[in-house]
Amino acid sequence: MRDFLPADKARREGVLAVIRERYRAHGFDEIETPVMEEYSRLHAGIGGDNEKLAYNVLKRGLDAEAIRAAADEPAELTDLGLRYDLTVPLARFYASNRGQLPSVFRSIQIAPVWRAERPQKGRYRQFVQCDIDIIGDASARAEAELAVATLDTLDALGLEGGRIRINDRRVLDWMLDSFGFAAAERPGVLITIDKLDKIGPDGIVAELRERGATTAAVDAFAAFVRRPMTMEYNPYGERQIRKALPSGAPDDIVGHLIGIGEAVAAARGTDGPLGDIPLVFDPFLVRGMGYYTGTIFELAHPSVDYSLGGGGRYDGMIGRFLGQDVPAVGFSIGFERIVDLVSERADAAAHAIVLVHDRDVPESELLAVKAALVRQGSRVRLEHRTKNLKALLERAAADGYTSFATVSAGTAAEGLEVKPLA
Amino acid sequence: MRDFLPADKARREGVLAVIRERYRAHGFDEIETPVMEEYSRLHAGIGGDNEKLAYNVLKRGLDAEAIRAAADEPAELTDLGLRYDLTVPLARFYASNRGQLPSVFRSIQIAPVWRAERPQKGRYRQFVQCDIDIIGDASARAEAELAVATLDTLDALGLEGGRIRINDRRVLDWMLDSFGFAAAERPGVLITIDKLDKIGPDGIVAELRERGATTAAVDAFAAFVRRPMTMEYNPYGERQIRKALPSGAPDDIVGHLIGIGEAVAAARGTDGPLGDIPLVFDPFLVRGMGYYTGTIFELAHPSVDYSLGGGGRYDGMIGRFLGQDVPAVGFSIGFERIVDLVSERADAAAHAIVLVHDRDVPESELLAVKAALVRQGSRVRLEHRTKNLKALLERAAADGYTSFATVSAGTAAEGLEVKPLA
Repeated sequence: MRDFLPADKARREGVLAVIRERYRAHGFDEIETPVMEEYSRLHAGIGGDNEKLAYNVLKRGLDAEAIRAAADEPAELTDLGLRYDLTVPLARFYASNRGQLPSVFRSIQIAPVWRAERPQKGRYRQFVQCDIDIIGDASARAEAELAVATLDTLDALGLEGGRIRINDRRVLDWMLDSFGFAAAERPGVLITIDKLDKIGPDGIVAELRERGATTAAVDAFAAFVRRPMTMEYNPYGERQIRKALPSGAPDDIVGHLIGIGEAVAAARGTDGPLGDIPLVFDPFLVRGMGYYTGTIFELAHPSVDYSLGGGGRYDGMIGRFLGQDVPAVGFSIGFERIVDLVSERADAAAHAIVLVHDRDVPESELLAVKAALVRQGSRVRLEHRTKNLKALLERAAADGYTSFATVSAGTAAEGLEVKPLA
Repeated sequence: MRDFLPADKARREGVLAVIRERYRAHGFDEIETPVMEEYSRLHAGIGGDNEKLAYNVLKRGLDAEAIRAAADEPAELTDLGLRYDLTVPLARFYASNRGQLPSVFRSIQIAPVWRAERPQKGRYRQFVQCDIDIIGDASARAEAELAVATLDTLDALGLEGGRIRINDRRVLDWMLDSFGFAAAERPGVLITIDKLDKIGPDGIVAELRERGATTAAVDAFAAFVRRPMTMEYNPYGERQIRKALPSGAPDDIVGHLIGIGEAVAAARGTDGPLGDIPLVFDPFLVRGMGYYTGTIFELAHPSVDYSLGGGGRYDGMIGRFLGQDVPAVGFSIGFERIVDLVSERADAAAHAIVLVHDRDVPESELLAVKAALVRQGSRVRLEHRTKNLKALLERAAADGYTSFATVSAGTAAEGLEVKPLA
């Protein structure tokens, strides 16, 4: 967990404002849920491994007897927990407030989540996620709206060239089935396949054999994954999708993937075949979360070799809270991963002035000068003159100030000589 | 703890943006601290009664033995807690990061805090505070900058007419001393005096007698508080301050109060005597927190009979974390109290368009129309046409949409007929 000093905080808020504005332009509406949710909701088995990383809140007013009684059942010590993602709270929110929401609900959530991860470089225990979700639309349009809004947001941040890797959990299920893996083997096989980027096809095949997966299925998988083919990044189209899969892939699933591509192409202004869209079909994309039921996404950018976000369709989750299934699909940008890629931008305020004053300037004179400048629309910071004026002005420039003026006893706002900071 | 639906959330973010922008204009810089702080820091006796209301976080990985061992020492079960205010975290932040901060540091913190209050109307367990603080300036200018920034923010929110009740803890100490209360009696006497607004002078005197406070002191207090005088709201000036106090009030304290008034008058553009400034001296203003050492404030507005915020000087607190005293003073706006007083404002987006479409419009046509409007700078929401079009449009208007258009198969963005929402 980190403190954010002024320069960092201003930068973070600036990037968040762009994300929020773009998401809203695409018709999503921001909501907010409490930081704490009921323990039983956070630990209903939906959150996967993240449940184990949740921070739980100690019940208030526990006496010695209650504590002793909980020795073998630590869950008795807690009733609330800090959210570890924004998807479980969204499902709970939708179930609680459905009557007040449109039939197709497009939500924005920009908020911190907490996980008790082991400290390691680039991982934080408190971090911000930027999620958009569409609840109540089972069509490929929902995926396309999410993808277009996400890519447009990346563009607006100056990160043009983003690409979305896309797959469908049903593709994975069908493929594993067609190779001959048993249904019970699937979760383990998927965990192995998820490492394809890291250990390559031979590594995967070796690990599957080590796991003792059905031999004939591993052989079929090996033959497929090692077949000669170019896995081009583009184009994205029915022919390419079918070429990347064993023959006989179900029409409805392929059709859904193509529907997403056509709608993205229409929105991004690409004519003709889907040659230019920033979607990449990857039949081995897995995504860890167990709750995905259909499309899965991952956001890539040429400047980095890790994913900047991802998401997918989770048509079964709302039903866990509502008792009635409602289709849902979401896309999350990992804010901590994206914020450092965005170049510095100028402070929004046209004039941000540092007033350097001598110690003998009366307080009321000083505040009158400051107030006059604030009224004119400037941002104004007061600073006592120090021996090292250069250092003082450099720090102010780093904090986003653009000009300075010196104030002595008797200086009025009109007589001020405002100079640009180098 | 509450969910915020789109209309509420947009309203809250709009008000926060105004507060943040005004605070920044006055030269304050926003920082952020983690939601959780170490248990020992939150429970160092600085937070007063709020410490008892803190949510504490269960240690991870406790085994049965560790739980049993903690039966008589529940604090052993926790290592972190959720902050119950923004002042204790700020003192910790300043001590941690002092080397990177200017010698006079003006901070903004806009963030939620948590208290396990009993549920009651208008009190929430998660609520947002908007704090500004000045660390490193012992002069009256610091109080004046806070007061001016706070009043300007209230004005910018359309809440003109705000007033700040002001007192100094040293005034209270001196006054009680001059009446003849013993130092050990002070805390209890202050708790009683704090009820003056509610139970009046006679109620206070009766309660002090019940408490068994020094009889001669209670008599002196009673004679003073019941003396015939007009407690005018204005003007604020040395004569008025001395008139509101027993004779002989220390010059340095009165001088500090006058210094604040003069600087506020200069900033607010008031000429001549301090006749027009929105400060009110109230010698019986107490403020609960034990950490205040000098000036104390409370923010009042004619539209409500409760305070909208407050603050004060806490010169001793930073030293608890840093081992070296640094003067500090802060002012907090209670966001939950202020947000409902602010009138609705129009959405920032010039055009916010609902596209009502028939179910047979191909997804790619629909997304192309939407994308074209987004590119032109509009905010766009898609809606399936329903039988009750009127209800659909009314909901969109409530969410801040300003116009609508209908899309049938074959409609292009150029041919769209955009109509205002009634």
